[in-house]
Amino acid sequence: MHPTHIPTKLASFSECWSPKIVASLNGQEVKLARLSGAFVWHKHDEADELFYVLEGRLRMEFRDGSVVMGVGDMLVVPRGVEHRPVAQAEPCAVMLFEPVGVVNTGDAPRGELTNEAERI
Amino acid sequence: MHPTHIPTKLASFSECWSPKIVASLNGQEVKLARLSGAFVWHKHDEADELFYVLEGRLRMEFRDGSVVMGVGDMLVVPRGVEHRPVAQAEPCAVMLFEPVGVVNTGDAPRGELTNEAERI
Repeated sequence: MHPTHIPTKLASFSECWSPKIVASLNGQEVKLARLSGAFVWHKHDEADELFYVLEGRLRMEFRDGSVVMGVGDMLVVPRGVEHRPVAQAEPCAVMLFEPVGVVNTGDAPRGELTNEAERI
Repeated sequence: MHPTHIPTKLASFSECWSPKIVASLNGQEVKLARLSGAFVWHKHDEADELFYVLEGRLRMEFRDGSVVMGVGDMLVVPRGVEHRPVAQAEPCAVMLFEPVGVVNTGDAPRGELTNEAERI
């Protein structure tokens, strides 16, 4: 049983909007992701999604408003809620907690920002 | 929907071995806990438990060895595995990710270190 050093894992990749799995437990996954600019509007019908900011600044937009998060801020986006993450200060990186198998673009049409999470 | 600033939450309490819930999602909870000295040997038969070190240094003892974790290290202790957290450099604090309702002392007899998690 070996610890995973999160800063080292985060430093091991540079691509944005391509979540990497760093831990799995209880049917959930912990992922790391780098963000740049604006993502697509989407929702996850069956999954609450937790964002924990590790680097930079993230604006989470909702249809009726937005919140800005800095390093150390955590936010749960409930299932079914449309949201759009926007990196507001870069480099921007987050830790995600969500159920196994969540696709980053949710219910939005698959596109160039759609990436299956890989384990690192 | 408001972000939770984890360092502020962590600074809001000082008691050790008394996990505080800071987020809930998908039947899971994110908790913060301060550690001091050695905890009790225990296991969780139905829950994998994630430890993410926020402050200090934590030694996780198993029946057949141990690992030492510093800030930024993450470890999943699988269900059924006996473990004993020991704060090795204090103040020591961790973020936990585990199913709703996990009791900190697991299968060990309830004692003075047993604490129900409260939401902060």
